[in-house]
Amino acid sequence: MQMPEPNAGVLSRKARIVERLNAVLPGGVIHEEAEVRAYECDALTAYRCPPLAVVLPSTTEEVAAALKVCRAEGVPVVPRGAGTSLAGGSLPTADSVILGVSRMNEVLEVDYDNRFIRVQTGRTNLSVTGAVAEDGFFYAPDPSSQLACAIAGNIAMNSGGAHCLKYGVTTNNLMGVKMVLMDGTVVELGGAHLDAGGLDLLGVVCGSEGQLGVVTEATLRILRQPEGARPVLIGYSSNEVAGACVSDIIKAGVLPVAIEFMDAPCIRATEDFAKAGYPDCEALLIVEVEGSDAEIAEQLDKIKEIASRHDPVELREAKDADEAARIWLGRKSAFGAMGNINDYICLDGTIPVSELPYVLRRIGEMSQEFGLEVANVFHAGDGNMHPLILFNANQPGQLETCEAFGAEILKLCVEVGGCLTGEHGVGVEKRDLMGHQYAPEDLEAQMAVKDVFDPQWLLNPAKVFPLGVTEARRTAALAAE
Amino acid sequence: MQMPEPNAGVLSRKARIVERLNAVLPGGVIHEEAEVRAYECDALTAYRCPPLAVVLPSTTEEVAAALKVCRAEGVPVVPRGAGTSLAGGSLPTADSVILGVSRMNEVLEVDYDNRFIRVQTGRTNLSVTGAVAEDGFFYAPDPSSQLACAIAGNIAMNSGGAHCLKYGVTTNNLMGVKMVLMDGTVVELGGAHLDAGGLDLLGVVCGSEGQLGVVTEATLRILRQPEGARPVLIGYSSNEVAGACVSDIIKAGVLPVAIEFMDAPCIRATEDFAKAGYPDCEALLIVEVEGSDAEIAEQLDKIKEIASRHDPVELREAKDADEAARIWLGRKSAFGAMGNINDYICLDGTIPVSELPYVLRRIGEMSQEFGLEVANVFHAGDGNMHPLILFNANQPGQLETCEAFGAEILKLCVEVGGCLTGEHGVGVEKRDLMGHQYAPEDLEAQMAVKDVFDPQWLLNPAKVFPLGVTEARRTAALAAE
Repeated sequence: MQMPEPNAGVLSRKARIVERLNAVLPGGVIHEEAEVRAYECDALTAYRCPPLAVVLPSTTEEVAAALKVCRAEGVPVVPRGAGTSLAGGSLPTADSVILGVSRMNEVLEVDYDNRFIRVQTGRTNLSVTGAVAEDGFFYAPDPSSQLACAIAGNIAMNSGGAHCLKYGVTTNNLMGVKMVLMDGTVVELGGAHLDAGGLDLLGVVCGSEGQLGVVTEATLRILRQPEGARPVLIGYSSNEVAGACVSDIIKAGVLPVAIEFMDAPCIRATEDFAKAGYPDCEALLIVEVEGSDAEIAEQLDKIKEIASRHDPVELREAKDADEAARIWLGRKSAFGAMGNINDYICLDGTIPVSELPYVLRRIGEMSQEFGLEVANVFHAGDGNMHPLILFNANQPGQLETCEAFGAEILKLCVEVGGCLTGEHGVGVEKRDLMGHQYAPEDLEAQMAVKDVFDPQWLLNPAKVFPLGVTEARRTAALAAE
Repeated sequence: MQMPEPNAGVLSRKARIVERLNAVLPGGVIHEEAEVRAYECDALTAYRCPPLAVVLPSTTEEVAAALKVCRAEGVPVVPRGAGTSLAGGSLPTADSVILGVSRMNEVLEVDYDNRFIRVQTGRTNLSVTGAVAEDGFFYAPDPSSQLACAIAGNIAMNSGGAHCLKYGVTTNNLMGVKMVLMDGTVVELGGAHLDAGGLDLLGVVCGSEGQLGVVTEATLRILRQPEGARPVLIGYSSNEVAGACVSDIIKAGVLPVAIEFMDAPCIRATEDFAKAGYPDCEALLIVEVEGSDAEIAEQLDKIKEIASRHDPVELREAKDADEAARIWLGRKSAFGAMGNINDYICLDGTIPVSELPYVLRRIGEMSQEFGLEVANVFHAGDGNMHPLILFNANQPGQLETCEAFGAEILKLCVEVGGCLTGEHGVGVEKRDLMGHQYAPEDLEAQMAVKDVFDPQWLLNPAKVFPLGVTEARRTAALAAE
């Protein structure tokens, strides 16, 4: 016998949705206005909007049950990892339910023979490595937010990190997922083996920003910890020369685990803040290599030889762990240092490595035009830039100028053959720039795939794709029902 | 003014299609029965069927024009690289047009600074490396057929090769493609930069076996040639022990470029044929490492130490280039050697590396049950198996027994957590096994993506997905028009 919906027609829409969610997730639904406010934004704090409600499932089955309710009610769902997105990837809309995976943080399987770990996706990035570190293994992708950010978000954004030059970003280290579609169907993609039969949907799920489904479990490649690692600090008198040095290292076929780049405004702010002992110069590189003592020595010799050809003002190899920590201290404090003296937005785009000098020069010129200072600190080895545009949030209009400037920088990345996102995703921030990256037919191909997985466009609304288009598609789909 | 179709209603369907194709591809259409016969099969020669016609475009625009004609006429299209597929990936149907990319073999761009090459996809795998070798670069994926096989087919099947353990397979070295959809739309996916904005369709196109579109241009990662390489030959008294040695090497975090495995039937046949000086033992490993002399020495020391723990009957390190060539000679002659004494089918599945000993033992038992000998030669490092089932094609019923046995082996791969294809693809060969790998909802997700790119299911018909399902989908789509 089919039961009538509880109090149908009496309760308001919100109350009915909350009641139905409570029925399938007892104890896992948040709806009081004061409480949902904790979910009103992610790390792109300039935008805020409390959601209708928040659900915190503990299992794949609970995720499926919650999605079925939302699908039946036509409620948009915003999947949320740890909320560390810098692009507004988990920003709610007022009519949406946040589906947070924070309670799903179990390790499900560890297999050292086949070098993988299977986890629930609410687990933080660093605690994945934490689960295998004692046995000498690690999980390679290392976003700056790795202490807080969840694997769910790493998969959604295809996150990278300082050490991804050698080991690749999330997509290179993700072997399989369990994913729940908007209608509650559970699919398994990939697995702890090489290759996929038929279409490799894992590749399109990684980086899909919660547009296709909610990933609840992930099988991740783990690697043996290297015997050792050693950074070298190289200072130059101009961004151009530092950029040329990066190009030469890459071209020579040396493969450091990291090549980090800081320009003068960043070096100075960082030095004031963290006192890492950086030289006063225009551009700094931190190049780190890994391996046995012999491998480290051999790679560093090549790197130092290349660096020397470009007349560095400083070339300092870490002789011990203390010195290594000091070299990294500044880089790791850079974002905090900038935040200490200014408001800033942190951009994220990629460019072909050889375009570094040109792009840095153009950013300098644009900085003059817009009247806002820019500090550059980024993963130079794979051309993943993170310009920080500094502004004063209390001065009316500066945020808007800052955003306009940011858009111009990302367009520049696309112009030189790069991409408007490296590891932060498109989210809300770059939604309206997608047309600069993609021709209408390229975008249409992406949206057609979205149609397949989420025909009503209920998943993670108002992100990634141009706003007008996505609303038109949802309206059409709902009207056709 | 719109021209009437030439002689519409007078010509037969085939003649009309050929005439329309000729109009857009003058000199690029083959339709005489004797000539199309050259395209009746690929390297899975047990199945043959001449196509309706063959088109050989030279440009992306010609591909688009040919596809538009076929779309308008409702003619299935079978994209073909070099026809080296071992899974029937480019087997025609009688009502289909073969679209061969063999004339499209130009190098379009070489960029050493950013380490990529852009080619038309008819170019052979080896000639990609050929275009950059003088300057010290190479393209990593190296299928056994690399002298003949085309990049188009490598992308379609996500091809690997002996040296892919370190550098990854095609999907890890493919940066971007230009692809023509069935309706003639040209899309660009990925590019010479890190990451993609929005959905990463490149990942799903790689390995899609011509089901989504015709890839006409590819941007490929090129790498610096290593300073040197050296193989070591290790013989064991059982498959189990050799398998355990492979597991230990992988677990130790050493990353050779290749770990190749040959079992006793393969060793003996190869030795008779190529006289490579292999020891008479039950299992042989060839492990190759790359790098500077110091790196090679250090890696080989670790590998020899691990190998020694398992009591090898032989452990021979190549002291010079001659000895290295001799170690590889047997492995490279293995397929020829087997073909010299027997008919065989070459299977392709992947398993978790730790399951090697169990799977080899089970294959041995099944060999007894089916009464057909099996020789194993494969990429052990990443668990990509290639059992060769030996049979006599002139003895009625043996091919069928052989195929039934092959299906059981692939099911075994799936059972232990592996995949029914490693680098050959599903094609015709494994089409009916997809249900063993995937739950109905997993398969439905794949087919829904196929629907998006090729709604009429005209591209590469009768492959990858179960036959009944695909025909039903095409019929329904054409009826709905």
